[in-house]
Amino acid sequence: MYIGIDLGGTNIAIGLCDVNGKIVCSKSIPTPKDPAEIIKSMALLSGEVVESGGYKISDVKAVGIGCPGTINTSNGTVVYANNIAMDHVPMTDIFRTYLDLPVNIENDANAAAFGEYVTCGENVDSFIFITLGTGVGGGVITDGKLLRGFNYAGGEIGHFTLIYNGEPCTCGQRGCFESYASVTALIRQTKEAMKEHPESMMHEWVREHGSVNGRTSFSCAALGDKTAIAVRDQYIEYVAAGICSTINIFQPQVLAIGGGISREGSVLLDPIKEYLKKNDYNKFMPKTELKIATLFGDAGIVGAAMLAKQRFGE
Amino acid sequence: MYIGIDLGGTNIAIGLCDVNGKIVCSKSIPTPKDPAEIIKSMALLSGEVVESGGYKISDVKAVGIGCPGTINTSNGTVVYANNIAMDHVPMTDIFRTYLDLPVNIENDANAAAFGEYVTCGENVDSFIFITLGTGVGGGVITDGKLLRGFNYAGGEIGHFTLIYNGEPCTCGQRGCFESYASVTALIRQTKEAMKEHPESMMHEWVREHGSVNGRTSFSCAALGDKTAIAVRDQYIEYVAAGICSTINIFQPQVLAIGGGISREGSVLLDPIKEYLKKNDYNKFMPKTELKIATLFGDAGIVGAAMLAKQRFGE
Repeated sequence: MYIGIDLGGTNIAIGLCDVNGKIVCSKSIPTPKDPAEIIKSMALLSGEVVESGGYKISDVKAVGIGCPGTINTSNGTVVYANNIAMDHVPMTDIFRTYLDLPVNIENDANAAAFGEYVTCGENVDSFIFITLGTGVGGGVITDGKLLRGFNYAGGEIGHFTLIYNGEPCTCGQRGCFESYASVTALIRQTKEAMKEHPESMMHEWVREHGSVNGRTSFSCAALGDKTAIAVRDQYIEYVAAGICSTINIFQPQVLAIGGGISREGSVLLDPIKEYLKKNDYNKFMPKTELKIATLFGDAGIVGAAMLAKQRFGE
Repeated sequence: MYIGIDLGGTNIAIGLCDVNGKIVCSKSIPTPKDPAEIIKSMALLSGEVVESGGYKISDVKAVGIGCPGTINTSNGTVVYANNIAMDHVPMTDIFRTYLDLPVNIENDANAAAFGEYVTCGENVDSFIFITLGTGVGGGVITDGKLLRGFNYAGGEIGHFTLIYNGEPCTCGQRGCFESYASVTALIRQTKEAMKEHPESMMHEWVREHGSVNGRTSFSCAALGDKTAIAVRDQYIEYVAAGICSTINIFQPQVLAIGGGISREGSVLLDPIKEYLKKNDYNKFMPKTELKIATLFGDAGIVGAAMLAKQRFGE
C-alpha cells in the first residue's frame, strides 16, 4: 500500500491507498505554520492513518507527497514554496527521521494531474489535467510519465501568454492564461461587469450570498441575467482559447478539466467543445477527448501515492 | 548509412548521412507538381545520391522523409498536405515500389527539430527547436523522442494564442504566436510602420532592394532609423513572449531558434535573454539555454535520416 499526502497551505490531507490508487482511509489536519512542524505532523499523521485502517507500517511500501512550490523530485528537496514558508528544505531526509519509508515528493499540481490520469485509466497515450482554481494549474503526462522539464519546473500550463501585455499575473508576467481563466480572474471579471451594470441580478445575488465568488455569474446566467451571461460566456471563451492552445501544442488523447468551476459540468464543457470544433489546428486526425475531472479534492492524495508506486515499485 | 529527404513545396533535397548525421553527399531538384511524380522522383534521386558518393544501395540501412502537412508516421501515410497536393497518400508503400528500403516519414518541422537536436549533442535531457520562417514551426524532443501527440498532430508551438482575438492566423484561429513572430508577420508589421512613417529610411531601403522583407527593419534599425528600431524591437518582444511561454510549459534544457531571422544572431538573441530574465516563471531552478540553431537548410535532411536510424536501428 502507499501513503499519499496532499500538503496545502491550509490543510494537510493524508490517505492510505491500495495499489490501484483507491483511498482506503484518510485524515486531515490544519497545516502548522512552522516548516519543521509541518514535516513532523505529516509523518505522525501518516502513522495514525495507517493504524486507523487496521494496517501496520510494514504494509506500506512508500510515501508520496504533493507539495506546493518548486520541488527537486530527485533529491527530495523543497526548493522554494512561499505559502508553507520553505526555502531549500530537505523534506525527504527530515520526514524519514520520523518515519523511515521511501519518500517521493512532487509538485502538488503535478501530483493531482497524475491522480486524475491514474483514475482516468492509465491506458491513454497522453493526458493533460487543467485545474481552474485560485490559479490555473495542472500537469502533462506522456508515455505514462509527468512532464517535469530538465529542472523540475516544467508543466506550467497556466503561464503561457494568452493576451500579450494583458492583466498582470501573479508570476510577474502579463496576460498569462491564468490571469484570465482562474477563479480569481472570473471574480475580477464579475466585479468589473457589476460595476458597469447596477441593474444586474448579480448585485442581489451577492447581497444574499455575502460576496462575489466563482459561482456568481454562472448562477445568475442560469436565471437569464444578461450581464451574468456575458461574463460567463466571455470567461468560458478565455478558458476555451487556452485549452485550444494547449491541445495544439500537445494533442493529448484526453484533457480533463478540474477545480471548482469544473462542477458546472456541461455548461462549461459544451461551449469549449464548440470553440475547439472551430479553432483546433488539427483538422484531419482524431481529436482530443475533453472531460470533467472526477477526483476533486482526492486527486492530490491519489496522485502522490501513485507517483510513489511508480518510483519505488509494487 | 541513411538517406534523408527534405520534401518541400519548392525543392526536394536528398542527402546520404553517416550514423552520426553527417551529410556525405547530396542533391536537390525542383518539386514536381504531380504527387505520384514526387514520390517516384524522391526514390530515383535517392539512388543517384548514393551512387554519386561512391556507395551502393546495400550500404543504406533506411530512408527518412521529412514531409509537410499531417503525417501518420506509424503507417507511412501523408494524411493531408496542401502544398504538395496529397490527401491520404500511402507514401511509404509507393516509395518502396521504386526503392525497397525501410522508410520513416515525419512532419518536416519535426524532422528539422530532430536534426538540430542530434547536432546539438543528443546528450541534453530535452530540446525545443523554433523556426521563424514563413510560419512559426518547430518541434519538441523529450527523453530523446519527438512529441507527436496521440494523433501525430502535436508539437504545433506556433499555434498557441499570444494575443486573444488578435491578427487572423493561417490556421483559422486569431492571434496565434505565428501571426506575430513569423517572417510574414514581421513583413506586415514593417509595412504598417512604413505607411505611418513616410520619413523612415526603410522606404529608401525598399527602393534599393525591390521589396519589403524580413531584413528591412533589422537593416535600417542597425543604421539608426527610429521607425525601424521600433518595428524590430516590438517584433523581438513578440518572439520573446512566445519563447517565454514555451519555456514555462516545457522547461527544456536547450531551446534553439532557427529560420531566416535567426541569422541576426545576438541582435535577436540578447533582448530575448533579457526578456526571459524578467519574465520566466522559473525563479529558483537552472535556466533553459537559449541558442541559435546551426544547420539552417540541412536540418530537414539530417533529422529525417536520424529519425530513420532511431526507428530502424544501426
